[in-house]
Parts: sequence; structure tokens; C-alpha cells
Amino acid sequence: MSFTDEAWERTAHLRAAIDDCRFLRELGDGTLDPGVFRHYLEQDEIYLAGYGRALSLLASRAPDVASAAFWASSAHGAAVVETALHGDLLGSGALPPADGPAHASPTTLGYVSYLVATAATAPYPVAAAAVLPCFWVYADVARRLARSATAVLDAGADHPYARWVAAYDAEEFHTSVATARRLVDEAAEGLGDVRALHEAFATATRYEFLFWETALHREDWPSPLAAPAPA
Amino acid sequence: MSFTDEAWERTAHLRAAIDDCRFLRELGDGTLDPGVFRHYLEQDEIYLAGYGRALSLLASRAPDVASAAFWASSAHGAAVVETALHGDLLGSGALPPADGPAHASPTTLGYVSYLVATAATAPYPVAAAAVLPCFWVYADVARRLARSATAVLDAGADHPYARWVAAYDAEEFHTSVATARRLVDEAAEGLGDVRALHEAFATATRYEFLFWETALHREDWPSPLAAPAPA
Amino acid sequence: MSFTDEAWERTAHLRAAIDDCRFLRELGDGTLDPGVFRHYLEQDEIYLAGYGRALSLLASRAPDVASAAFWASSAHGAAVVETALHGDLLGSGALPPADGPAHASPTTLGYVSYLVATAATAPYPVAAAAVLPCFWVYADVARRLARSATAVLDAGADHPYARWVAAYDAEEFHTSVATARRLVDEAAEGLGDVRALHEAFATATRYEFLFWETALHREDWPSPLAAPAPA
Amino acid sequence: MSFTDEAWERTAHLRAAIDDCRFLRELGDGTLDPGVFRHYLEQDEIYLAGYGRALSLLASRAPDVASAAFWASSAHGAAVVETALHGDLLGSGALPPADGPAHASPTTLGYVSYLVATAATAPYPVAAAAVLPCFWVYADVARRLARSATAVLDAGADHPYARWVAAYDAEEFHTSVATARRLVDEAAEGLGDVRALHEAFATATRYEFLFWETALHREDWPSPLAAPAPA
Repeated sequence: MSFTDEAWERTAHLRAAIDDCRFLRELGDGTLDPGVFRHYLEQDEIYLAGYGRALSLLASRAPDVASAAFWASSAHGAAVVETALHGDLLGSGALPPADGPAHASPTTLGYVSYLVATAATAPYPVAAAAVLPCFWVYADVARRLARSATAVLDAGADHPYARWVAAYDAEEFHTSVATARRLVDEAAEGLGDVRALHEAFATATRYEFLFWETALHREDWPSPLAAPAPA
Repeated sequence: MSFTDEAWERTAHLRAAIDDCRFLRELGDGTLDPGVFRHYLEQDEIYLAGYGRALSLLASRAPDVASAAFWASSAHGAAVVETALHGDLLGSGALPPADGPAHASPTTLGYVSYLVATAATAPYPVAAAAVLPCFWVYADVARRLARSATAVLDAGADHPYARWVAAYDAEEFHTSVATARRLVDEAAEGLGDVRALHEAFATATRYEFLFWETALHREDWPSPLAAPAPA
Repeated sequence: MSFTDEAWERTAHLRAAIDDCRFLRELGDGTLDPGVFRHYLEQDEIYLAGYGRALSLLASRAPDVASAAFWASSAHGAAVVETALHGDLLGSGALPPADGPAHASPTTLGYVSYLVATAATAPYPVAAAAVLPCFWVYADVARRLARSATAVLDAGADHPYARWVAAYDAEEFHTSVATARRLVDEAAEGLGDVRALHEAFATATRYEFLFWETALHREDWPSPLAAPAPA
Repeated sequence: MSFTDEAWERTAHLRAAIDDCRFLRELGDGTLDPGVFRHYLEQDEIYLAGYGRALSLLASRAPDVASAAFWASSAHGAAVVETALHGDLLGSGALPPADGPAHASPTTLGYVSYLVATAATAPYPVAAAAVLPCFWVYADVARRLARSATAVLDAGADHPYARWVAAYDAEEFHTSVATARRLVDEAAEGLGDVRALHEAFATATRYEFLFWETALHREDWPSPLAAPAPA
């Protein structure tokens, strides 16, 4: 069995939790609070900026030019998604206005820092395994929603939730997932010990689950960065 | 006012929370559950390994040889603390045995990843501001405990809590804090805009607070990395 | 005057040397030894692999998502040039076969290492200034050759030298140069001291000159890496 | 045979060239032009600043805390050598005054950039192999000179050449070499393919040879960075 097939199997319990999470169920049936979806998009915007950094670091350390080209192109893609899809959805008028400037939640800061730190200091195969779930889990979720989320999809292609599903179920995105998987499998090949790769893949998959879970509850820090203003 | 003086003032509410946190109060009066202290040391060991990486990255990007030498020496020091102080305390027989292999809590993984990611990708002055609270807050807490924690200190220099206080109140550690502050102030000098430095300093200070807070409650992940074994 | 305008002026003597170098004069009038051109392409292939790494590191440290996206896209572009233009030219049959596996000349290894090292450890504005000459000098040379190299261009669009000129005089490449200049000027803005940026720009421009100069003479190392095989 | 034993054997021809180079022969018999030795120390000062960066990057990516501690401590050591030994020798009055501000020669810039670039982007075992020759070749040369350079050593322990020999033949430095070798051998263990490690080791060894060779001839760039001032 390939490394990625095995990593996928080993994280089945985390994907079951993802499939079952209220955020995605409500997104699929169209009942998700638009304020929650805006909060999610704001967190995702912060995430994608850091994810792009992680992919660029990975590109800088890739073993060959073709792998480097794929990760660099994906880094560019992360920025494009942010400015295109997010700008589009946030500016569409279908979502409530922002509460104020967004700041990273504990889970967002933890996830994105974990990926950048791993891409900066862990061996390339471990770093490649860490960035894979963001590709794969999104494509997997979007594919499933494209089949099941009839309520939202029937509401019209303009509905922000429908556009989100369409973006991540795009054929081109599934092709990227296949390439990312192949590069991770190539990196894993010939390694005697892939435990660190499995740990990185599972850690990132768990963060994927927590990202939706904490977006739903608008997770915040127990203490603000700045002291509360005097009344 | 120097940058670090201002950063210290701006985070007074976080330090008040630190001074008031149960972990430190109980450590000071000797009532802290030894199992909690062991858990804290295990998390700190994971933390120090990553903190050393962050300091080494900072050293690699320092503006001059003297600054690079200080950060590199501190990276070496982080490893020495881990193997000396921790090995000493964990192996002293005064603490209960380990429950099993330690894994990073959400806060530990978030904090250490944040420092490594910042040291790898943020401008040098921001990265220097991010690593400073770990020096300064520890020295500050230890100095205060050295005065107030009479219960623990009277119990004898061999008590693990007394040794912990002594290690971080050592004169040599206070000298390191002064050097780290000076390097951060030098890096901040001449910058028109120090908002990112303040944010980094406050973010790390908040993580310092959360580190003790979550150690006390033995914070864990809502989902394990591996599926639970069948009963 | 913008930083890049001034950096361009300050390196006029290096560009005069470039314009006057025999490699480019002979490329323009079609008399360049095809074996030399193959050697140059082999060195450029090694260079572009490293240049892509430098651009990816720069992307990982860019101050905002739009800048990161440009450098990441350029890193992808460096790989595409290598596999497309180079593969095309080297495989065209118009050039003599390879002598054996290519290895980096002292100048190629020095230049590409300088860019990667600078992108990894110098402040972002310095690193951005270091990668700029490769964009700008190539576009400048190609534009001038597109006007003057009538001998080669009249020989037909299939001539490898004509294709090389066309690739770097493409409108899309000139647009990239303009964006790269803008990003460097934005990074230089507000810095009190831009001496390190000027030094990086001039160092890379000098390497550009030496790259052609040493390709012409097929520069090699005074000592091989491996001991000479016994006769 | 261990990786480092084999790497040492494979580079015997480069070490023969080092042993035979005029710089070291003249240093050993005390006839080396003091102006050349000053030029060498100036280049070495530039080199050590970058070497420290490379060692810090290596520390940030080391597989365990003990290895990280060694590289970080060596990074600190590189800075100490620079400020202590160099300051001492350059300020001793035994060498002629500086000609003006020093700038990196092509070989110095190439070598130090190669090490930093390798430590930033190559796999850890390759980067560890690249920094090893600077430890090992220096200790080897100093040990041999300590035995053969009677002319210089008899001139008294204050002679700058004698102090240089003593510094690198110190027992503590030989211990560092042994540790560095052990870490490289551990990193090489279990790798199926060590070709990239051999190439890195040989490339750095060749740069060691060229460093002395080009110091002797005060190698300079064919074109200055700045335009010559008008007469």
C-alpha cells in the first residue's frame, strides 16, 4: 500500500469526525449561519496567507525542479483563491458585514504556524506530508457535498455555499490533489521509517477538523492581546 | 521609552494573569500536584527543543556577528536546560513516573510552532520580539517567586520547585534577559512602524500565560491522532 | 529617484561590460559557437533550478499576499523556462550533443548560492534587490538584441538564438520585470539605509556579466571534485 | 567504512593540493608575506560570519536536541574565533595596517554562500557533510603544522602564525572535529544513496583549498561593484 493510502486509512476516525461536523452539515443543507460562514472565510484568509508561505518553503527545498514547480504553483494558487474566491464571497453582499478587523483564532494560528514551522525545519518528506491534508480533505469534502448538498446547490450557482463547493470540487483541484499525493508518495519511497510522516499527516488532518469545529463556535483566546480599554 | 519598556507595559494585563495563575501560586506555596509539575516539565521539554530551533533561525538571520553569537549561545542554552535541569528534575525521584510517552498539547504545539514560523519568515526585529517573552517572563516570575515562595524555598534547595526557581533566578539568566532586551531594542530602533513587533511580543506573552494555565489542566486534543484501539 | 532607477544608474559600468561582452555580440550576429551556447544553456539550467529556490524563499518571506503570489509565480516560471525553452533548444538538433553530465562552474555555483543564501538569511528588501537583475538585465539585453540582432533574427524564428531572444523579449516577460521593480521599490520605501540593497543589486548584476563571460570561456574549477582516474 | 572515512579518502587529491599550497608552506616556515596573512584574516572574518549562519541553519534543522546543541555551540564558537583570535591577530601590531574596508573575494563569497544555501535548502545530512571540511581540514592542517612548522613555532608563542597554529591544534578543537564527524556519520547511516553527501563534502574541501590559494594571490573581481571614480 502506498504511504498516502495508508495515511488516509489511519486517519479515518478524524475524517468521520469531519463528515459529521455541524459546520459542514449545515453548510450542505443551507442552514449554516451566514455570520459563521463569514467568520470561517476570515479565518481561512489568514490561513491561506500562511499556507502559501509553507508551500513556498516546501518549493525551496524540493528535491527536483518538477516538484518545486508544483509547490510554487500551489503557493501562487493559495494566494489566488484568497483574493478571488474569498474577495468574491465576502464582497458578494450575501454575507453580513465584518464585525471588525479579523485576528487569527488559537486553532488558525496553531495550524498555520505548524505548517510553516514544519516546512522550515522538518525534512522535506515530513513537510510534504503535512501540507497534503489541506489539499485532500478539502477535495474529499467538496466531492461529497457536491453529491449530497442538493438543498444548497439547488438554491443556485450564485449561493455562496454553492460557489464554495464548486471551487473545491473543480476538476483542476482534484488533479492538484493527485499530484500532491504522488509527490508525497515519491518522497516517502525508500524511507525506512515513515512514522514522522504519518504523524505530520494526522496532525494536519486533526487541524482540518478543528478548523471547522472552531469556526462554528467562533473560538477566541481566553485573554486579548491588548488590555481592555477602560470603561 | 524604549520599545521593550513599552511592550512590557502594554502586556501588564497578561502578566497580571500570569502572576495570578494557580499553577504558579501552588508552585510557590509548595502545594502544586507533582503530577502536574511532571506534565509541565514534559511539555517544557518539547517546547525547549522547538525554542532552540527558533533561536537558531534567529541567529542565522541576525544583522551582525555579536547578535548572532548571542542567539546561537541561547539556542545552545535551551538544549542544556532541557538535558540538565529537566533530566535532573524528572530523574530526581521526587516526581511521579511518566504516564507514557509525552505529546505536545495544543498550546505547546501552537506556541512553539508560532516561534519557529515567525523566526523562519517574519522580519528579524519581529522574530526577536517574539522570542523575548520566554526569557523575560521566566526571569520575572522566578525573581518574584524567589522572594515570595518561602514555603518551597525553606523546604530545602533540593526540592524540585526550589531548584526550578533557582535556575531561572540565576544571575546569569538575568544577564541574558538584559542582552536579549538590548538586541530587541536595537532591532526596533529606526523602524517607523513597530506594530508587528508589539503584536509578536504580546502573542508570545499570551502563550506564556496559556502554557502554565493549560499545564495545570493537562490540556489535551479533542481527538487523538490515532484511532482508539478496539476494546 | 526611485531605488531601482538609482540602482540601474549605479551599475551602468557593469551593463556596459555586458553589452560589450563577446558572448552576446556573437549571439547577436549569429557567429557564437553552438558548443558554447549549449554550455551556456547547461549552466543556465543549473542556475534556474537554484533561482527558483531563491524566489520561493523570497515568496515565503514576502510582506503581503500579492507580493508572495508574484514571487511564487516567478519561481514556477523559472522551472517552466527550464523545462520548456531549454528542453526545446537543447533537444532541437541545432546544437551539438552534450560532452557529458554538466556540473556547475565556479561562477554558476557562486551566483546561485549567493541568491539562495541571501533569500534565506538577508532582510526581505535586500533579497528582493538581489533577484531583480536576473529579470531586468535579461529583458534589457533581449530588447536590445531584438532590435540589433538582425543577422540572427533574419535566419528565421526557428534558429535557437532567435528563439532565445524572442523568449526574453516577450511582452509578458517585460511585464514581470515591471512588477519585480515595483515590489523592490515598495520594499525600499521608508528604509533609511539602502546600502545593502544597492550592494545586493550590484553583486547580482556583476554575476550576470560574469555568467556570460565565463560561459564563453567554459570556465572550470582548477581542481576536479574526484581524483583523476589512473591512466 | 564510515561515510566520513570514505569521504576523506575520496578527497585525498584535494588535501594533497592543500598540503602543497604555497600559503601554508610559507606560513609554516615563517616566510609568508604579513600583508597576505592580513588579507587572509580579513577574508576569514567574512567567511566566519557566514559560516556561523550556516551552522545556525543546520542547528535549526537538526534531528535531535543533542545535535542541535552541538551545531548551535559551534555557531557561537565561529563568532568567538572571529572576535577573539582575529581581533587579537589583526590588532597585534605584527601585521601591516588594512588597505581599506575588506570585501569578499569571489572564492570567499562563493564558499560562504554555498554553505548557507546548502544549510537552508538541502537535506540535513547533505548540509552536515558540507560544513564538515571546515572543521576537519583546519584541524588536520594545524596538527601537521604543529609538528613541522618549527621555524615559526620556535619564533615564540606570540608570533601571529604560531598563535594561529596553536588555536586550530587545540585539543578542544580536535574534540569538536570528532563530534562533527560522528554527527555526519549518524546522518549518513541508513541512507541508501550518499552521493549528494560526497559531493557536498568534496565541494567544501575544494573551496578550502581555493580559499588559501586565492588568499595568496589576493584574488579580486574582474569588475568592481561601483563604477571607478573619474580621475
